[in-house]
Amino acid sequence: MLKQLKQKVYEANMELVRHGLVVYTWGNASGIDRERGLVVIKPSGVKYSELTPESMVVLDLDGRRVEGELNPSSDTKTHLELYREFPEIGGVVHTHSRGAVAWAQAGEDIPCYGTTHADYFAGPVYCTRSLTKEEIDKDYELYTGKVIVETLREHKLNPKHIPAILCRNHGPFTWGRDADEAVYHAVVLEEVAHMAAMTRQIKPDAPDAPESLQMKHFLRKHGKNAYYGQNKPDIQG
Amino acid sequence: MLKQLKQKVYEANMELVRHGLVVYTWGNASGIDRERGLVVIKPSGVKYSELTPESMVVLDLDGRRVEGELNPSSDTKTHLELYREFPEIGGVVHTHSRGAVAWAQAGEDIPCYGTTHADYFAGPVYCTRSLTKEEIDKDYELYTGKVIVETLREHKLNPKHIPAILCRNHGPFTWGRDADEAVYHAVVLEEVAHMAAMTRQIKPDAPDAPESLQMKHFLRKHGKNAYYGQNKPDIQG
Amino acid sequence: MLKQLKQKVYEANMELVRHGLVVYTWGNASGIDRERGLVVIKPSGVKYSELTPESMVVLDLDGRRVEGELNPSSDTKTHLELYREFPEIGGVVHTHSRGAVAWAQAGEDIPCYGTTHADYFAGPVYCTRSLTKEEIDKDYELYTGKVIVETLREHKLNPKHIPAILCRNHGPFTWGRDADEAVYHAVVLEEVAHMAAMTRQIKPDAPDAPESLQMKHFLRKHGKNAYYGQNKPDIQG
Amino acid sequence: MLKQLKQKVYEANMELVRHGLVVYTWGNASGIDRERGLVVIKPSGVKYSELTPESMVVLDLDGRRVEGELNPSSDTKTHLELYREFPEIGGVVHTHSRGAVAWAQAGEDIPCYGTTHADYFAGPVYCTRSLTKEEIDKDYELYTGKVIVETLREHKLNPKHIPAILCRNHGPFTWGRDADEAVYHAVVLEEVAHMAAMTRQIKPDAPDAPESLQMKHFLRKHGKNAYYGQNKPDIQG
Repeated sequence: MLKQLKQKVYEANMELVRHGLVVYTWGNASGIDRERGLVVIKPSGVKYSELTPESMVVLDLDGRRVEGELNPSSDTKTHLELYREFPEIGGVVHTHSRGAVAWAQAGEDIPCYGTTHADYFAGPVYCTRSLTKEEIDKDYELYTGKVIVETLREHKLNPKHIPAILCRNHGPFTWGRDADEAVYHAVVLEEVAHMAAMTRQIKPDAPDAPESLQMKHFLRKHGKNAYYGQNKPDIQG
Repeated sequence: MLKQLKQKVYEANMELVRHGLVVYTWGNASGIDRERGLVVIKPSGVKYSELTPESMVVLDLDGRRVEGELNPSSDTKTHLELYREFPEIGGVVHTHSRGAVAWAQAGEDIPCYGTTHADYFAGPVYCTRSLTKEEIDKDYELYTGKVIVETLREHKLNPKHIPAILCRNHGPFTWGRDADEAVYHAVVLEEVAHMAAMTRQIKPDAPDAPESLQMKHFLRKHGKNAYYGQNKPDIQG
Repeated sequence: MLKQLKQKVYEANMELVRHGLVVYTWGNASGIDRERGLVVIKPSGVKYSELTPESMVVLDLDGRRVEGELNPSSDTKTHLELYREFPEIGGVVHTHSRGAVAWAQAGEDIPCYGTTHADYFAGPVYCTRSLTKEEIDKDYELYTGKVIVETLREHKLNPKHIPAILCRNHGPFTWGRDADEAVYHAVVLEEVAHMAAMTRQIKPDAPDAPESLQMKHFLRKHGKNAYYGQNKPDIQG
Repeated sequence: MLKQLKQKVYEANMELVRHGLVVYTWGNASGIDRERGLVVIKPSGVKYSELTPESMVVLDLDGRRVEGELNPSSDTKTHLELYREFPEIGGVVHTHSRGAVAWAQAGEDIPCYGTTHADYFAGPVYCTRSLTKEEIDKDYELYTGKVIVETLREHKLNPKHIPAILCRNHGPFTWGRDADEAVYHAVVLEEVAHMAAMTRQIKPDAPDAPESLQMKHFLRKHGKNAYYGQNKPDIQG
């Protein structure tokens, strides 16, 4: 069942390793089959060198294991909450990549300092509030998902416009139309996090990029007038 | 047509990847055949692993596509403006390399702190002003080229003396006598950007290198009395 | 004698190199056979490329060489002191990895800024006091061990709860149930040290992660209610 | 002539590349045959991938080329001055490695913050004064050597006790008993430079390591009571 999706989610997990975002087992990617309402996710705490497409775990949107013998990622409930609340997304990634974690630990949004950021994120990458002790005690991973949703709603954000968030004192989650794109956004976020930290080191009070430049770059790659890549009419000089 | 130049521009693009300056598709190199007035440039948004010499796009200096089936780099108009305004250059490179982007995002010139910098750049690597909203709306990539030219002219610079610039809140462009040399300057710029950031971290108010040392190093490698490398008479002890 | 333990300690030493924690010969891992009271440790100053399982040195807990022709690591007495004082540990590692050394040189505890840290260390990674001139002159490596023990006791710490320490102006020691786990903790510590330095660069006055989040993460992976990985009942959604 | 020394100097130059200290052609290693008074050095501006043992240049101590068809390194006169003034050294290395250059550009000595530093350098790694315009105009590379010698003499230093220096706004020179050891010291210096910068980032006013700890570590590896490695009697328990 879901052989193709398991293969894709497996590949997405391995891609995290190839891009250097993962130390030991610290990361997980998932994907969803929206028609069947089934999520495929990495098993918990398994070495990447021992992962196989077959070892991926299949769950329904309520977290009931449908297939697979291993426990799913300990962050599963967060993934599920994002799938339930954002019907437009098809893949989710969580990592402890160094740069994004550093901003999450600083408890700061990553400002949009330039076009590398604006090409993918239409504004700052937000950092959530802290969870309360009650939320942590009651159902930590579920509330991690809920506070992500709360943060996006608070900023009236379409999740496709800023497909990444920082969980405070924890680390990044990213998403996309499938697991592959969620990985892509995790890689971009990590690069952007390092660029932003270096920008702040060079000039602690550096302002955000001008709004008009931010919008220009985001819209070069997104929406009906996008002209980056090969999907659009020639932009002859 | 231009088989050799396409091969060289292809190689220059791949060299950007080998030197670690490129994440995903974020970079492009071009070269010009001055006799024919034709520019060869990387296609837009194509994976480096799928690039071939044949996939390079050929344009005239007004941006009309002469050969190639793919859309040219979305930054094409910037490249063309530099070729039109600086007849002495034969290759142009644009990247989003981390260190150079960090300075561009900080909106600061990279000061000439030492000889590594002075060996290639006869003064600071300048950061342009921001484009106005009008310039962005009217023709973003063209005006990106125009503001580069404006910045060099404002400082009365021969583009060969400082073959690099930072576009504010965006990233670096470099150039050279051909695509290869433009890549070389992109690699040097990235190293120099990291050294300068680290210098500032160690000593926030570090002064520029003394003028006489800067000039000595630049002239060791450039101009009629250069004696670095194998092109000049022996410098016996 | 101890063929299997020598193989394991050899592998642990090589793993330090593979994880990039070691420049030249700067690091050592050891393991203990508690039943026989014998410690296996890397020889001193030998290139990693020339190490073999057979070249490992065997010592009793008083430091008498029982097997092996080479001198043991110059840090041997520190390892032995930790084995004598902490019967619950089975492996010890010492490195000069960059990030951990930087905090040791700064003379600061690594604050628990987030969950990456809290997953492994139930509180800050402490930095010891300086050794006195008398301690250094009398028996430097022995007193290095003694001050580690003193620091843990001062904080009433079970060594398994924070399996790492920074020796002031020197570098990290880590430990675990065997040499493998001590290496694992050395790798985690290095990553955590870099994340913490970057956090402080972004926000110099960043507070520690909330206590409840720290405890949640540590207990997800440790103790009788741990549910990370494959050893525990399914955590269904 | 000097076939063996050319092989060794060739290998030393390649080792600089393998350790990541060199971008393009930015580095050079040399060695001396003291009996014959002949120095072997890398040719100037030649790609490392095209270097061979045979392409090494042989010079006498006055800089007259004795063998080899290529121009010697443009830094040759600096190497020669060090060989003339310090009869105890047998190899010299110059690089533009990032960390050491950053300290040289900051114009600061690298403080001895810890034992990694003290194991090799018995005190700070000094930064020279700036050369005067007159010195630069008269004979830049020769005076670069003279100011290195001046700095060591000013601090009454045996060059073997701190086998490295920073030329202000330029970069590091290191030396040793042969070219190999000079490379070794260049690698150590680069690591120490990064550790020190990170230390200062974490704690801007971090003090030097205590004098007694510095001396202990230097003397563990140097002098008649050294006990690191395999050359000394067992340091049992």
